[in-house]
Amino acid sequence: MNQLKPVALTSGGFAPFGDVIAIEDASHYPINQGFAERYSDLARVDIAAERGEVNISIVTAEPRPYPIDIRLMERHPLGSQIFYPLQDRDWLVVVAETLTDIASFRAFRATGRQGVNYARNVWHHPLLVLDPESRFLVVDRKGPGNNLEEVWFDEGVEIVVMP
Amino acid sequence: MNQLKPVALTSGGFAPFGDVIAIEDASHYPINQGFAERYSDLARVDIAAERGEVNISIVTAEPRPYPIDIRLMERHPLGSQIFYPLQDRDWLVVVAETLTDIASFRAFRATGRQGVNYARNVWHHPLLVLDPESRFLVVDRKGPGNNLEEVWFDEGVEIVVMP
Repeated sequence: MNQLKPVALTSGGFAPFGDVIAIEDASHYPINQGFAERYSDLARVDIAAERGEVNISIVTAEPRPYPIDIRLMERHPLGSQIFYPLQDRDWLVVVAETLTDIASFRAFRATGRQGVNYARNVWHHPLLVLDPESRFLVVDRKGPGNNLEEVWFDEGVEIVVMP
Repeated sequence: MNQLKPVALTSGGFAPFGDVIAIEDASHYPINQGFAERYSDLARVDIAAERGEVNISIVTAEPRPYPIDIRLMERHPLGSQIFYPLQDRDWLVVVAETLTDIASFRAFRATGRQGVNYARNVWHHPLLVLDPESRFLVVDRKGPGNNLEEVWFDEGVEIVVMP
């Protein structure tokens, strides 16, 4: 059984897979008569292919049983996909550069103040939360065409969640 | 001094101004092998005018002193604008159909599980939060053109925040 230990999510580590949406390291400027700060342009939203439009969704999620067994990866050939947590609680992100190369899989532990934007065609596992009744705001694509590829594995990649 | 008392935010009450983004009353369906539910297509994102693109931002905000004095309204002629709260705490929304008609102003109290999408050209007050260090995910427009109109008033509209 292969094992992946989640490492802290950083913009640099996640760069091959998309954007980390967070205020750390982002430039910002005051707005609203000084009562607010804006951290602008934090993700490359890429949904216009084949007359795609922006889809705003909320997803509620439950934890999977430990150890989390990775048996499925998916990707979206027509659009990027943002998940931003609506509670200030850690969650997990699993991505891969090449499904046939187990060494290319990565697991990240995101904080509750980090969202991700999976770039088009990036293999990722469905949402992995650590707490019941977790909620996420999702920004992805709606429109014509098939925007989902799923691959199931015979042999799983076990993810060990560090305390 | 005119006064506005916030009323509970509902999709129906907010309909002339845009969308309420919330899972209540929204249709949903299971995803992710049954570990998640998706409430899809919750807002009409309208940002494509004049080669506009989606802008993903985080805004942090501080409360204004009470009583909140409404002396400024703004609107975005080229795009819609979503604010979704990143903490489960109430916040306030002030909109108007016609700036010259004080009777057309509306104040809403949103929960921490309600976002709003201001439609293009809807007059609204800048972000009004009730708690320090409030955070919002913002989905609006970037691109060429002037997308901001601001109007300052001589006489303010006092907003009374109910406990």
